[in-house]
Amino acid sequence: MQERVKVAVDAMGGDNSPGEIVRGAVEAVTEREELVVFLTGAKEVIETELSHHTFPKDRIHVVDAREIITNDEAPVLAIRRKKDSSIVVAMNLVKKGEADAFVSAGSTGAVLVGAQLLVGRIKGVERPPLAPLIPTMDGIALLIDCGANVDARSSHLVQFAKMGSIYMENIVGIKNPRVAIVNIGVEEEKGNMLVKETFPLLKNCNEINFIGSIEAREIPNGAADVIVTEAFVGNVILKLYEGLAASLMKKIKQGMTSTPLSTLGAALVKPQLKKTLKAFDLSQYGGAPMLGLNGLVVKSHGSSKSNEIKNSIIQCIAFKEQRISEKIAANIAIQESI
Amino acid sequence: MQERVKVAVDAMGGDNSPGEIVRGAVEAVTEREELVVFLTGAKEVIETELSHHTFPKDRIHVVDAREIITNDEAPVLAIRRKKDSSIVVAMNLVKKGEADAFVSAGSTGAVLVGAQLLVGRIKGVERPPLAPLIPTMDGIALLIDCGANVDARSSHLVQFAKMGSIYMENIVGIKNPRVAIVNIGVEEEKGNMLVKETFPLLKNCNEINFIGSIEAREIPNGAADVIVTEAFVGNVILKLYEGLAASLMKKIKQGMTSTPLSTLGAALVKPQLKKTLKAFDLSQYGGAPMLGLNGLVVKSHGSSKSNEIKNSIIQCIAFKEQRISEKIAANIAIQESI
Repeated sequence: MQERVKVAVDAMGGDNSPGEIVRGAVEAVTEREELVVFLTGAKEVIETELSHHTFPKDRIHVVDAREIITNDEAPVLAIRRKKDSSIVVAMNLVKKGEADAFVSAGSTGAVLVGAQLLVGRIKGVERPPLAPLIPTMDGIALLIDCGANVDARSSHLVQFAKMGSIYMENIVGIKNPRVAIVNIGVEEEKGNMLVKETFPLLKNCNEINFIGSIEAREIPNGAADVIVTEAFVGNVILKLYEGLAASLMKKIKQGMTSTPLSTLGAALVKPQLKKTLKAFDLSQYGGAPMLGLNGLVVKSHGSSKSNEIKNSIIQCIAFKEQRISEKIAANIAIQESI
Repeated sequence: MQERVKVAVDAMGGDNSPGEIVRGAVEAVTEREELVVFLTGAKEVIETELSHHTFPKDRIHVVDAREIITNDEAPVLAIRRKKDSSIVVAMNLVKKGEADAFVSAGSTGAVLVGAQLLVGRIKGVERPPLAPLIPTMDGIALLIDCGANVDARSSHLVQFAKMGSIYMENIVGIKNPRVAIVNIGVEEEKGNMLVKETFPLLKNCNEINFIGSIEAREIPNGAADVIVTEAFVGNVILKLYEGLAASLMKKIKQGMTSTPLSTLGAALVKPQLKKTLKAFDLSQYGGAPMLGLNGLVVKSHGSSKSNEIKNSIIQCIAFKEQRISEKIAANIAIQESI
């Protein structure tokens, strides 16, 4: 029998909760039979949602949690005070080893804080980064870090590079992934203080395949597999990716339908165009994994629909099967012992 | 008679020099009769290029300069040693007051260093920012700073906000331009140390219309007119803007022409699509102005064709007519006297 992968899912987080979250969980367990999902939140609300679906009863469990942490709340306070919230209850399942992973589309701040306070860091990991996959011309790249730790130090960035390499090699299947640091030029002497300090450390790191600096222009071209940067810049890159793609699509639609002739043309190109552009849709990969923790935490977009929740949950299978946390722990332990 | 606007142009800088630079200069003086252009570089080479064009002889002058500064050279050393380079000779024309402005598609580093060492800062200006106009859904925004000063301090960012506001109000004609600081969330307590320090300073600055934080996602939507950020982040935004737009266009073309039917559709939408997407072409605004100097310096893309050079040169007219440097000097003087 396959090893079971148990995922705690925050049923009350995100703009489309609980409906789309519950639907995503049902789709995930239907697609992958090794999955067991714990939905945390108001029991009666979740059960009403579940009653609309057919699913294997032994693989979705409801865990009652009476509180909800909203986006407006100060994360640290909310995690400490709302012990019966859907986020805290789910994270405690991971902490106690009753679940392998946690998925939420709720408050990013609360998820990041809870991950550190409740799930906890792997010994030796200084800062756990949030590392979404982003689409490139011909594939995907891992952007690490993207919002968990502002004002990072160079030693953090070196750990990000190592953890990102392990993820890309074992989960995405890219052998010897190319690691680059985001910079404002490709020459070694370019950059701000943090980059100048980090560059030689990455260069001397034997466990990764460091290829040097990457300019933001080259990220969409797929010039590297693991894109290392501190959280502020990473967050700007991620959000600009989303915002610019959406704006351009809107502009293109306007342009295509501005005359009767172009509207006819638009109808003809639409099916192929849709197919091609799907590659640039960030939701297909599910949420962003947070690495370096005693268990996987996946942060899905606040706007997640069932498909993204499903992919976020499915992502947890490979993470467990490939023993990513153990590999990170071993790698960081090597570093510590040097 | 109109006031003459004299622009020194580096004829030897950029991937397409001297041909496209000379052509851009010819197009500029043909379009605007108040312009006088000084082309600096190897006299015989420039004169050969000029011989292919018809233009008013009294408004294009060649100033001989025997050296060229390349992109590989260390900027400070190059500016100090190559006194007879096209960049240094042109900048000295501005320094001596023989030209009002300088345009170059050459080494960004050399232009930025030369601007500070030769053209010089306006009294009170701590750091002169590079501030390109970027396209948004329905207009344009000024991104300030974009590469001149990494590891900036909060006082620099406040000056950027003021200089950017003066530029947008007087050159682009946006009354009371909305100023926002790039952040990783919209709440006041969000951000890295620099942003947290700068936020209250901008909030208390009466001379600007500060609207708070802007997430990178909202930049393409036109949520602010003056986008304040330190140079590293600004450079990442600018380059990702360019790179992502180019990648998406390539992807769209691939998608549109992947089947015979979609190829037919592509032919029908092409004219309208081209028109709409022109709005997202960064070259139409000419290069990025560097503000806060005793004279205007405009950095054009290394890949500039004649059209961008023309627009870079024409930009200098409004800058002089609107007395931007004088307005910046007056504004900074107010600040100094408080």
